[in-house]
Amino acid sequence: MNDTSDQAPRVPAQRLRAFIAAVFVAAGLPDEDAHVLGELIAAADLRGTDTHGVFRMPLYVRRIKAGGINKRPDIKVVEERPATALLDGDNGMGHLVMRRAAELAIEKAKQTGVGWVGARMSNHAGPAALYAMMPLAHDMIGLYFAVGSNNHLPPTGSAEALLGTNPIAVAIPAGKEPAVVMDMAPTVAAFGKVRMKAALGEPMGYALSLIIGLLAGPLNGAAFGRGIVDFLKHPATATNTGQSILAVSVDAFCPADLFKENVDAAVRTIRQSQRLPGVERVWLPGEQSHTKRLDRLANGIPIPPALRKNLDALAQELGIEAIL
Amino acid sequence: MNDTSDQAPRVPAQRLRAFIAAVFVAAGLPDEDAHVLGELIAAADLRGTDTHGVFRMPLYVRRIKAGGINKRPDIKVVEERPATALLDGDNGMGHLVMRRAAELAIEKAKQTGVGWVGARMSNHAGPAALYAMMPLAHDMIGLYFAVGSNNHLPPTGSAEALLGTNPIAVAIPAGKEPAVVMDMAPTVAAFGKVRMKAALGEPMGYALSLIIGLLAGPLNGAAFGRGIVDFLKHPATATNTGQSILAVSVDAFCPADLFKENVDAAVRTIRQSQRLPGVERVWLPGEQSHTKRLDRLANGIPIPPALRKNLDALAQELGIEAIL
Repeated sequence: MNDTSDQAPRVPAQRLRAFIAAVFVAAGLPDEDAHVLGELIAAADLRGTDTHGVFRMPLYVRRIKAGGINKRPDIKVVEERPATALLDGDNGMGHLVMRRAAELAIEKAKQTGVGWVGARMSNHAGPAALYAMMPLAHDMIGLYFAVGSNNHLPPTGSAEALLGTNPIAVAIPAGKEPAVVMDMAPTVAAFGKVRMKAALGEPMGYALSLIIGLLAGPLNGAAFGRGIVDFLKHPATATNTGQSILAVSVDAFCPADLFKENVDAAVRTIRQSQRLPGVERVWLPGEQSHTKRLDRLANGIPIPPALRKNLDALAQELGIEAIL
Repeated sequence: MNDTSDQAPRVPAQRLRAFIAAVFVAAGLPDEDAHVLGELIAAADLRGTDTHGVFRMPLYVRRIKAGGINKRPDIKVVEERPATALLDGDNGMGHLVMRRAAELAIEKAKQTGVGWVGARMSNHAGPAALYAMMPLAHDMIGLYFAVGSNNHLPPTGSAEALLGTNPIAVAIPAGKEPAVVMDMAPTVAAFGKVRMKAALGEPMGYALSLIIGLLAGPLNGAAFGRGIVDFLKHPATATNTGQSILAVSVDAFCPADLFKENVDAAVRTIRQSQRLPGVERVWLPGEQSHTKRLDRLANGIPIPPALRKNLDALAQELGIEAIL
């Protein structure tokens, strides 16, 4: 892997988790929630989604201190059917809300074949792939989508940035191969930034962002469009973030072992296909993140100097031990 | 609407439906199935998806005559859970299989909040939007995805076209506004064709095609990757096409009237937003198809000379009345 942060000092995953948990305890969250957050936020760093991991800690703490996030939320089911549920996150940390949502979706999929759980009054929850991957351990497929936390994408032809990044992730279990994991967050952003008019890319990026936004936002009673609160600009205001997760039981359609063998075969066909000149390897979606995770589990997570400085300042502010 | 086929003679929708039904009856399909096909195939023409409508009739008849499509299929449920089902299409016309799938998904969504129905041993079923839109009348959201009928998209870095167009459509009910309908089939094709390396568009087009393909193909026990049968090249061979549909009850999350008001508001915010210089109108996804449908319902469907020639030849071959 070509990791630009290769030269930075590394911190073991267990230390990173403990540091994150200590920050949240110092910020006033319950011990158990703080440790769950340590696990989930470090998981983002392990997969190389560095902008969605420990990097965000100063921002989370700023929101918690400003009253923009509820330290002791009462996350509860407000609508329920055999295969669906809607959670009210009570403005808690998004990771806690969406972990609960994923667990409930998995339970429902065990009973009915599929579970679709939405959340309102949630908050930023880290990388989409994190939640899409939760059903994998149960031989289930996971889908996750969310309303992005700020708007920077104009509808095609419009001069107003009315839509956000609105990420979608899908995770499909494999057998001996790593799971196939698509995380489209960066692309939709790219759609907005690069303006590929010729390719239909822009109208379709707009359509996809709109659709995801409506499913994760208004369907869940969460913010959308001009109602989005930019969480960087307004640390004290509840964002009413909307997110949804689906869990699909493979066994409801195909024996899981057979399916996973077929996914392995598809993965290998693609990886072993003839390559274009100059191409060293054909990667599967999610495979580079998987490789990075194995490296970082073994060798630790790089903490570049600028990040370390911010985390040291945070540790000092909260009176806890520095990360390194 | 700028309709390039504006000058062509037009045929009323009812005549188009009757012509299509007559073709299928003459080809040996049961009356009832032939009339359902007339309805569904003409619906593609009405929305302006001309390449997926009556245009395909000579091809369908060629496959039926060659034995590549089962004229009297026994479409049946082979796996079932409260919120999911798998259909075996018995190699019948894909439209018949997926209409059944949509009906079943809607029934399940009424009971459990969501219904996910997959199909194997199906065939080309026309435009994805057609099925995604079926749940709308029940105040439900529809999602449809399918394995494309030929492979022309190489995974990023690969020299082999291992993936197909693999369309996805999502339809979201509105109140007084037309439903918001995304149909991504053309884009994924565009991803393959235009090679927008810089934009991450290509890797993400590959990831999306792969994910849709695995969900609609192997999960349903249907063909995928090198197993895809090019239905143009092999008219006598069953394609084992895989398709899936989800119906999601809006009421399971949010009172349908409130949701539809919110979708209307989102639609109007976008339509009335400030436009870029030179832009006459900001369109919503699916709105141009909706406008085209209203025009074609009122004024008929254009039949350009080349198409008319093919349909006249087909009518003569089958001994039925010409379309015009």
